[in-house]
Amino acid sequence: MPRLFTKMSSKAGAAPGTLVHIGQQRVEKVRLSLVTYGPDTIEEHQVDTLEEALSLCDGSGFTWLNIDGIHDIDLIEHLGQHFGIHPLTQEDILNTAHRPKFEEFEHYAYIVLKMLRYDAADNRVLTEQVSLILTGKTLISLQESPGDVFDPVRGRLHKGRSRIRKAGSDYLTYALIDAIVDHYFSILEQIGVQIEEIEDDTLSDPTPKVLQRIHRMKREILYLRKQIWPLREVVGVMAKEEPALIQSDTMIFLRDVHDHTIQIIETIESQRDILAGLLDMYMTGISNKMNEVMKVLTIMATIFIPITFIAGVYGMNFKYMPELEWPWGYAMVWVVMIAVVIVMVLYFNKKKWL
Amino acid sequence: MPRLFTKMSSKAGAAPGTLVHIGQQRVEKVRLSLVTYGPDTIEEHQVDTLEEALSLCDGSGFTWLNIDGIHDIDLIEHLGQHFGIHPLTQEDILNTAHRPKFEEFEHYAYIVLKMLRYDAADNRVLTEQVSLILTGKTLISLQESPGDVFDPVRGRLHKGRSRIRKAGSDYLTYALIDAIVDHYFSILEQIGVQIEEIEDDTLSDPTPKVLQRIHRMKREILYLRKQIWPLREVVGVMAKEEPALIQSDTMIFLRDVHDHTIQIIETIESQRDILAGLLDMYMTGISNKMNEVMKVLTIMATIFIPITFIAGVYGMNFKYMPELEWPWGYAMVWVVMIAVVIVMVLYFNKKKWL
Amino acid sequence: MPRLFTKMSSKAGAAPGTLVHIGQQRVEKVRLSLVTYGPDTIEEHQVDTLEEALSLCDGSGFTWLNIDGIHDIDLIEHLGQHFGIHPLTQEDILNTAHRPKFEEFEHYAYIVLKMLRYDAADNRVLTEQVSLILTGKTLISLQESPGDVFDPVRGRLHKGRSRIRKAGSDYLTYALIDAIVDHYFSILEQIGVQIEEIEDDTLSDPTPKVLQRIHRMKREILYLRKQIWPLREVVGVMAKEEPALIQSDTMIFLRDVHDHTIQIIETIESQRDILAGLLDMYMTGISNKMNEVMKVLTIMATIFIPITFIAGVYGMNFKYMPELEWPWGYAMVWVVMIAVVIVMVLYFNKKKWL
Amino acid sequence: MPRLFTKMSSKAGAAPGTLVHIGQQRVEKVRLSLVTYGPDTIEEHQVDTLEEALSLCDGSGFTWLNIDGIHDIDLIEHLGQHFGIHPLTQEDILNTAHRPKFEEFEHYAYIVLKMLRYDAADNRVLTEQVSLILTGKTLISLQESPGDVFDPVRGRLHKGRSRIRKAGSDYLTYALIDAIVDHYFSILEQIGVQIEEIEDDTLSDPTPKVLQRIHRMKREILYLRKQIWPLREVVGVMAKEEPALIQSDTMIFLRDVHDHTIQIIETIESQRDILAGLLDMYMTGISNKMNEVMKVLTIMATIFIPITFIAGVYGMNFKYMPELEWPWGYAMVWVVMIAVVIVMVLYFNKKKWL
Amino acid sequence: MPRLFTKMSSKAGAAPGTLVHIGQQRVEKVRLSLVTYGPDTIEEHQVDTLEEALSLCDGSGFTWLNIDGIHDIDLIEHLGQHFGIHPLTQEDILNTAHRPKFEEFEHYAYIVLKMLRYDAADNRVLTEQVSLILTGKTLISLQESPGDVFDPVRGRLHKGRSRIRKAGSDYLTYALIDAIVDHYFSILEQIGVQIEEIEDDTLSDPTPKVLQRIHRMKREILYLRKQIWPLREVVGVMAKEEPALIQSDTMIFLRDVHDHTIQIIETIESQRDILAGLLDMYMTGISNKMNEVMKVLTIMATIFIPITFIAGVYGMNFKYMPELEWPWGYAMVWVVMIAVVIVMVLYFNKKKWL
Repeated sequence: MPRLFTKMSSKAGAAPGTLVHIGQQRVEKVRLSLVTYGPDTIEEHQVDTLEEALSLCDGSGFTWLNIDGIHDIDLIEHLGQHFGIHPLTQEDILNTAHRPKFEEFEHYAYIVLKMLRYDAADNRVLTEQVSLILTGKTLISLQESPGDVFDPVRGRLHKGRSRIRKAGSDYLTYALIDAIVDHYFSILEQIGVQIEEIEDDTLSDPTPKVLQRIHRMKREILYLRKQIWPLREVVGVMAKEEPALIQSDTMIFLRDVHDHTIQIIETIESQRDILAGLLDMYMTGISNKMNEVMKVLTIMATIFIPITFIAGVYGMNFKYMPELEWPWGYAMVWVVMIAVVIVMVLYFNKKKWL
Repeated sequence: MPRLFTKMSSKAGAAPGTLVHIGQQRVEKVRLSLVTYGPDTIEEHQVDTLEEALSLCDGSGFTWLNIDGIHDIDLIEHLGQHFGIHPLTQEDILNTAHRPKFEEFEHYAYIVLKMLRYDAADNRVLTEQVSLILTGKTLISLQESPGDVFDPVRGRLHKGRSRIRKAGSDYLTYALIDAIVDHYFSILEQIGVQIEEIEDDTLSDPTPKVLQRIHRMKREILYLRKQIWPLREVVGVMAKEEPALIQSDTMIFLRDVHDHTIQIIETIESQRDILAGLLDMYMTGISNKMNEVMKVLTIMATIFIPITFIAGVYGMNFKYMPELEWPWGYAMVWVVMIAVVIVMVLYFNKKKWL
Repeated sequence: MPRLFTKMSSKAGAAPGTLVHIGQQRVEKVRLSLVTYGPDTIEEHQVDTLEEALSLCDGSGFTWLNIDGIHDIDLIEHLGQHFGIHPLTQEDILNTAHRPKFEEFEHYAYIVLKMLRYDAADNRVLTEQVSLILTGKTLISLQESPGDVFDPVRGRLHKGRSRIRKAGSDYLTYALIDAIVDHYFSILEQIGVQIEEIEDDTLSDPTPKVLQRIHRMKREILYLRKQIWPLREVVGVMAKEEPALIQSDTMIFLRDVHDHTIQIIETIESQRDILAGLLDMYMTGISNKMNEVMKVLTIMATIFIPITFIAGVYGMNFKYMPELEWPWGYAMVWVVMIAVVIVMVLYFNKKKWL
Repeated sequence: MPRLFTKMSSKAGAAPGTLVHIGQQRVEKVRLSLVTYGPDTIEEHQVDTLEEALSLCDGSGFTWLNIDGIHDIDLIEHLGQHFGIHPLTQEDILNTAHRPKFEEFEHYAYIVLKMLRYDAADNRVLTEQVSLILTGKTLISLQESPGDVFDPVRGRLHKGRSRIRKAGSDYLTYALIDAIVDHYFSILEQIGVQIEEIEDDTLSDPTPKVLQRIHRMKREILYLRKQIWPLREVVGVMAKEEPALIQSDTMIFLRDVHDHTIQIIETIESQRDILAGLLDMYMTGISNKMNEVMKVLTIMATIFIPITFIAGVYGMNFKYMPELEWPWGYAMVWVVMIAVVIVMVLYFNKKKWL
Repeated sequence: MPRLFTKMSSKAGAAPGTLVHIGQQRVEKVRLSLVTYGPDTIEEHQVDTLEEALSLCDGSGFTWLNIDGIHDIDLIEHLGQHFGIHPLTQEDILNTAHRPKFEEFEHYAYIVLKMLRYDAADNRVLTEQVSLILTGKTLISLQESPGDVFDPVRGRLHKGRSRIRKAGSDYLTYALIDAIVDHYFSILEQIGVQIEEIEDDTLSDPTPKVLQRIHRMKREILYLRKQIWPLREVVGVMAKEEPALIQSDTMIFLRDVHDHTIQIIETIESQRDILAGLLDMYMTGISNKMNEVMKVLTIMATIFIPITFIAGVYGMNFKYMPELEWPWGYAMVWVVMIAVVIVMVLYFNKKKWL
């Protein structure tokens, strides 16, 4: 099950700004990719060290530095020194248990988001933390592992004459956030499909296995919700407070992302409501089943108990039992027993138990 | 069941303003109708192309351009260029999965609403997206398929000397919103009638079928609620923030629509409460039924078990069983057994189980 | 059951301000009563037409025009023309499905309220809509049918030297609202008494009939709540926003009414909580009863099954069954069977099932 | 059970300010006690009439007039005339069904609070209304019956050189409110002890009696909550809006009372949560018990039904039943039956039903 | 179980500022530790009396006075006189039942927090109250007993050239709050581990013992929540209202703590949701088990009841029962009985009860 309660205590009491990587290391080696672009030019480099990357920035045009892997504390510290990033921000980059947030500093803006990935094998949602640092004409993005969510953005950058090439780094920031948020929809779709499956099973055959699936899905949704709720606030603040580093032209696009986040949250809440309803449905289904079992038992018992009693009566060994001597006694007993059965069946029929 | 989780992921990562039609194509060919009107004149044209429609606008008086069918991307793009509509708005028009919203741009206002239709055959509510673009003296309305919700408004336009002819495009905008919102009431009525049916069935005969109907209706309400809630905000913003494109005379009418949307939302919430209560009622009904089944079983078993035991005793083959030899033994056994039955019946009577 | 979902769809799409009476006609003929009063004088007239009433207003002193019956569209239209009432307000007066609201216009204030009546025969609450129009020195009140809720106010008017005679029409408005709100308390009392009855029945004897009464009462409360909640807002707005037509002396009285509406809402919420708790109590009561039934069955079955088995054993026809030949065999079997019964009874006693 | 729905309707429609005593008369004769004090002097008088009391006020120093018993309408009216108290306030003093509130008038402040008392015999909470009127250097307190909650404050007044002697009437007002609020803690403690008792009983032995106690306690808490919630608002307004009649030195003390009221409300909410949980626990306990009963029945039935069948088989009277003739037939039947029993016991053991 | 309802009534009615220690005395003797530090120097002293401590403060640099044990009323009073602390604050320090709060006075700020400790033996959370008084260059911290939560902060102080040495007492205040809040994470982790254990048990084997553990854990969470919720407000006020005694450089660190408190509260809420879901799971598990028991009973009874009846029939003693005389009668009866069993088994198979 997804760990709802991440380990953070290992750092308890440490000085703020103490750089400790919290989370699993997902790549062996940090990889950096650097894109420098302008309306007419674009260059992309895959480099291994931060020094190399920095030496490639010549100041003209806009720069997008993407870092895959965040466990290298030295690199983060170096990055911090070069771009003047507050120690607390450096700490937040390394801490993968952080809530999404937007923070504005004097000369840079810092955004933490969660990227979601659906693990089809395990039927669960995995999260990865993405940090975005927007400072002047440079955007730095830090991911835990290389992913393909940013690929469409990279593609658009390479197409000439697109808005993304002309607009500045703030528009690129928007584009990356938009790519992440758009990706949530596909996650929610996969979850929606599964919920509908569980729904069908609950209505048709409420086995204990279905109960476990409902429970697992409830936890999954709870986990997702915890990851996505703060996003609303983050994008809301960006779309409404008009941060200094974001140009007014980009604001309308951020408002569009804000609409999407609200839609995502509404969908999660709907899914939660449906799951909560499913547990009630399950319970009621179980009761219906038990009712059916009880009816079978009651019908069998109620039909056979009286006639077994009659058979018992004529199995008694009294010396003087006149019926036993009658020539039609045995036949009459059968008649009586069949009559009892018919009466019972009619009674159950009337009660609609059959 | 209504799809609560619409597909939107096909566009994930695309550039904003990329025009992709999201949703089902509901008409084969886009149809345009153009109404130009003023206090004294009115003309209506059915045309096939946007060019034709635009050529018919001579600038005098007010214009209402209604477009049925929104899958034609070229048409939307052309429309956008002609009226200076932002690419994001164009994208929103094509995306039928959008939440209702009101957005004000420099020279136009954009409103997205949901039109509801009740599918009697399938017993479910269908939604259709309506976009309204108010720009100066022109109102453009875009529907997914031709519908009859706007017919009364069209009728009022044709009646001479009515307020709608004299007031401007903003009043026409209001009139269309009002027609959509008023139509919600009839949907809620139909749902209300069905809920009352389900209610009666739950109270009189809680079968598993009723349970499924409760569940289906809960989902339907959940779906409706998700569609209608944002409406409150949309109309609220229009009625309170006094957008520049809407004249102060029209404001009072918008406030009236706002009252109606609140009433609609309150009704949906009531229906939700009642449905939630019905599930509890159903559960309790099932328990009552099981109780009744148990009572029948217990009464039958408790009456016959002791007398069957007595018959069993005198079926034993011991050599020395004095009772068997008594002349009245058999009769006495019957007396005892009948006495046991009477005692049991009195006991159950006292317990009010009969 | 109370109709929670009023018909409003018959008007869908009609022009705003279209005068259509929505609701049942409750009186055959509209009746008007006119009271003109000042600190020293008071005159009361029962008239049949609005013209007559208007001709009796001489402009000196204050005027209270009460109209019983609101189905006469011509009268409302005439009233609207004479006092300059907005078409939308006229529409609202005729629409008995309206939510309570307070609206301030340039030269008049419009208040819609719900008057409640308890139908003892049917055990349900009925609502009637009351419209109040305060315009200068005139107050117009419109009821659906003649009622006795305003009688105490009328009585106070006739008493000389009372505050109500000296204060203006705004104080009279307050007095009428106060009379309506005070009347709610008696309705809530009657409901409270019924809830306590249901409570006793639920605790002592949870029959399916009690379940239906709980359900009915829940719906009744839901209905009441929907009618009364908006009142809080209405009176709150009047008490806090100090409308121009209401003098500051009257404000303190409005705040007092506001306190009462809050108390009424709190009482309704308490009643709702109690009813919700009662359903749980009912469910638990049913479970307790089923438990008792099960215990009786289990005790009977568990005591008799072993001894019936023993009797069965000695009913077998084997040639060589030594026990059957023993002289004390039969007596010993009885001893064994009685011992089994005693052991079982002790066991159940220990389990506290007896 | 506590009456959640107080009678208030007897006054419906009466003129505001009509003085009617609503509630039970708790003392036979109104008693007044007058304390005049200053930093250096203090005098206390028990008087029988208001005239006497007023004649004892010489204007120097501060005055605390405590009135036990509020049913004497003449006295309240006289008091009102002497201190210039608004008729609505007079009405509120007499109405014991009033919600706690704080109201500021031109020259006095009016506070209504509820004093709680725990009736150990009946196991229920009783409320009594306290009105405080702070006007200049005089504080008037009105209680329904003489109580000992104010005794510690009276004691502190008599101690020389205490802050309460030096600070003015506003500090005395605070001191009385503080005494009332502090007393709530002891009430909550007594309720807490009872809840823990109910909790133990629910976990160990969920009898129908425990269910009734849970229900009673839930109602009691609901009642308490309704009385105490408004207090938060009352003290909050006093602590935050800095009323003119309260000196800034006293404000910090009021904020302290505010903290206490929040703590009291949080405790009530916790108690509510626990009680709600207890009902679930009770239900589950009942289910567990029923499960146990069912198991006993099933074990007995399942063990004895097959062996009784075997005995039945050899009780048949067929002419040719070879087993009956076997010398070891009887013994073998016993062996078979014992084997069946052992198999069954092993099966139940495996299922962990034993 | 944790006492949710602390004793506070012993003080009811006492004068405000009356110094009474409320809570358990946790240490025998109060111990004081004094740290005086500056960018370049640091000195630490363990002293026994306040006088000694005060004499060691020479005014240069910053001072941190930590007091373990708060039952010594004289010491608190002395401290209050020396630093000019309001009597109400002194009272709050002594009252361990206080809610977390932040209060700003003219020349000092007062913060109350709860320190949590997990008692592994008893499986419960213990709280301890911590008071922080920030006054100019001095920070006074008061704990109920010596703990190790502050040790990392003390360690950082001793490291030269760290931010904590250069920044003032307000930063030290932050550092202590941060240490307390960070410690909460480890508590939540331990609770999370336990919840997952309970979860596994509920899903695999819902015994009454598991039910008790769920209940205990629910209470524990309720208790924790009550302790931690006010923290959000406390740190929120500090982080947003920029108190005079806290420098703007420290603000960013406080905002970081604020983020952590929100994360803690979200985690507690998640844990609550999961526990609430577990009770439902438990209930459903019980129902599933009962269903299984019922099925076993029904299958056994339904298979054996008819064949026992058949055996009973041929155990009757009628003179004329032709079947008894048939040579293959006995064998045929066996055939019939086996056929009945096979039919029953097939039926149950079809019903998926086997």
